[in-house]
Amino acid sequence: MKPILALNAFDMKAAAAGGALEELLRRRAEVFGSASVLFYERPLQFVRGQGCWLYDADGVAYLDAYNNVPAVGHCHSRVVEAAANQLGQLNTHSRYLDRLIIDFAQELLATVPRGLSNITFTCTGSEANDLALRLAAHFTGGTGVIVTESAYHGNTARVTEVSPSSFAQWRPPPYVRTVPAPDGRLTSSAALAAGFANQVTAAIADLERHGHRFCALLIDSIFSSDGVFSDPPGFLRDAVNVVHRAKGVLIADEVQSGFARTGASFWGFQRHGITPDIITMGKPMGNGYPIAALVTRPEILDTLCAKVGYFNTFAGSAVAAAVGRAVLQVIAEEGLMENARRVGEYLKRSLLELAARHPGIGDVRGAGLYLGVELVQPADGSPAPERTAAVINGLRARQVLIGAAGRFGTVLKIRPPLCFSVEHADRLIASLDEVLGEVP
Amino acid sequence: MKPILALNAFDMKAAAAGGALEELLRRRAEVFGSASVLFYERPLQFVRGQGCWLYDADGVAYLDAYNNVPAVGHCHSRVVEAAANQLGQLNTHSRYLDRLIIDFAQELLATVPRGLSNITFTCTGSEANDLALRLAAHFTGGTGVIVTESAYHGNTARVTEVSPSSFAQWRPPPYVRTVPAPDGRLTSSAALAAGFANQVTAAIADLERHGHRFCALLIDSIFSSDGVFSDPPGFLRDAVNVVHRAKGVLIADEVQSGFARTGASFWGFQRHGITPDIITMGKPMGNGYPIAALVTRPEILDTLCAKVGYFNTFAGSAVAAAVGRAVLQVIAEEGLMENARRVGEYLKRSLLELAARHPGIGDVRGAGLYLGVELVQPADGSPAPERTAAVINGLRARQVLIGAAGRFGTVLKIRPPLCFSVEHADRLIASLDEVLGEVP
Repeated sequence: MKPILALNAFDMKAAAAGGALEELLRRRAEVFGSASVLFYERPLQFVRGQGCWLYDADGVAYLDAYNNVPAVGHCHSRVVEAAANQLGQLNTHSRYLDRLIIDFAQELLATVPRGLSNITFTCTGSEANDLALRLAAHFTGGTGVIVTESAYHGNTARVTEVSPSSFAQWRPPPYVRTVPAPDGRLTSSAALAAGFANQVTAAIADLERHGHRFCALLIDSIFSSDGVFSDPPGFLRDAVNVVHRAKGVLIADEVQSGFARTGASFWGFQRHGITPDIITMGKPMGNGYPIAALVTRPEILDTLCAKVGYFNTFAGSAVAAAVGRAVLQVIAEEGLMENARRVGEYLKRSLLELAARHPGIGDVRGAGLYLGVELVQPADGSPAPERTAAVINGLRARQVLIGAAGRFGTVLKIRPPLCFSVEHADRLIASLDEVLGEVP
Repeated sequence: MKPILALNAFDMKAAAAGGALEELLRRRAEVFGSASVLFYERPLQFVRGQGCWLYDADGVAYLDAYNNVPAVGHCHSRVVEAAANQLGQLNTHSRYLDRLIIDFAQELLATVPRGLSNITFTCTGSEANDLALRLAAHFTGGTGVIVTESAYHGNTARVTEVSPSSFAQWRPPPYVRTVPAPDGRLTSSAALAAGFANQVTAAIADLERHGHRFCALLIDSIFSSDGVFSDPPGFLRDAVNVVHRAKGVLIADEVQSGFARTGASFWGFQRHGITPDIITMGKPMGNGYPIAALVTRPEILDTLCAKVGYFNTFAGSAVAAAVGRAVLQVIAEEGLMENARRVGEYLKRSLLELAARHPGIGDVRGAGLYLGVELVQPADGSPAPERTAAVINGLRARQVLIGAAGRFGTVLKIRPPLCFSVEHADRLIASLDEVLGEVP
């Protein structure tokens, strides 16, 4: 199977970009080598960003319905000012006392369930998930980890082992089991919850049978790289009970679903009425400044710290704090959670209307401003990876940016900055309508 | 054995700071829990930084002879401006084409030996070393890793396994062997090189005997956390030949020794006339903005990329590039490598003069502005951890910041911003002279 990313990747060999662009592409290929991946058949080069818009060198504006990192909008002035002021004032590590990072920590901890009272800052979501897996192992004494079939949780050595979607061909390490992402189309709500819980139960049993004591269920509550499975809220509760009865921990990877994205609650897991043992967060946290974190209960953090220290040079700096606080403030003051709910509902309704007219749309899913649109072959409803790539490139030609996710790379991934408006949604819908009419 | 850091850590239980400071310490302990570590018996709280100085809330200035991250000086205006301008302009991931990051990549690659022509950006040195270990394993097909006895290479799950100094009590994983850091006091120059090479040879043989095919020698060429072992230049050459004859790779962790720190060359490994297979870099690279990188040969990067992708959301952004380029420019324009050489030599000479008068100084080592001063019991020359902690806290009381390193935590670690001047050195020496006279 082709890796999902490759479906929407620029192919240097197929390129005849010409002129200055070709020269830049050649230089890029030289310095980044085989790790270089660019989006689109014809790569995009931006020079400016503002709100939900990215601009190329000719001043052409692209509607950004893809990037969730600039969550409060590209280059938001409040965040830029906070960073610039603090960068000019003080920027050191966290082994000196600093009020700002403590204030930020308390503000973040106020958003999570009681008892989850310790926070460790990192620079990336990958570092947070890497640390989460270590904490879970130290706390439970187990090693067995369960993830979903097309999960992505980050890029460190350890986290890559539990990220099937990073591999062209994934062979799970002995201590890892996968469960299918919970697909609400296949069953009733009650059966969905029970089915997912049963899958987790079976995976735990299989781990234990092979001598791998169960440690953690690691999930992203919107199942983003699996193809966006969000509904009905609450379907994760039974599985979490299974995890806790088996003395394992639930790691909620909130890198995608956190920070008001789903519109329903600040954290994705709250939509499901569950309480994780460890929460990890990243991408939108600094609106592009590299900050991330892990939140857990003291007794879980203690088990690691009794044996080995954890320190992260760049994390927990006054700059990280200033930026992170600005993001929280903007989310609150601009009502971005409510906007995500309102515009997300509008966009989802519009996508469902589109689906009624386009048989190539197999399903519309998601919560708030994280939506998935599954594309299928109109003839038989089978996965349509080439159509999906064509749609994404067709939208690019109409200056609209989205991505793809899912096991077959056939789920249009729509997760714009949280300041996305009804007018932006209309533009996206109109463009998608055109493209779906053209793509065979 | 007490972890090295604990020697200079604030002990909450012993604290009676009083008033506002005590309140802040209590709040900090609550949110950071057992992962919280603060420097000094009495923690410091800074509000401003400039050049080689940090200022507390009362405006008291502390001379910074410890922090190597703000390599071109705290809050350097050129770097702050570069960050602020780019943050306000565009800040996206590297899957869009961007000239800035390619220019930065080429500028960095121009500083390393030919053939090392691919660069992968990360956010932290830990992420770079984590990736380096994976590349080495994929390229060599081996797993066995050799590090020095008190090495520190980062904080991910994988990298922590090869960082003995992070543990209260380290039990090496089966695939890891340690060699003593090369201590020039014990032998002649020629014997030092041969001795280190013999240790590596023996470690490789032991790995292979236990079924762990040799993969990599991972070293920091100034052996910073081992206690600073820099001389004579060239002593690493024999060991590198051993590594290559055994089909392993040399990973040069340049997080500490890179970016002109040693005064002799831009990279620490260049002082030894060796060519690594993989170079990792971090801390000073963004003067506090979280950027890091890995440089290697294409055929090494290719082996990983054939199987699994590597992408780092925050890394390789236009902001990272703008900041990194500003740091390179300041190093060049302000002649900071030459300054590191000149002031480093002056400081080392001054420390040697101090050693002649203070029998508690057992050794003075290092290159450029990375110096180590080993403290011993004057009576018998044995390690003096309590004296070292007392000296560090005594310097803090005189508004001078340094740290400790080494197996017993008895090596004063001096690695100031590279704009450290002769006058700064005089101030450090005068304070150290006083403190050494007072500490029993």
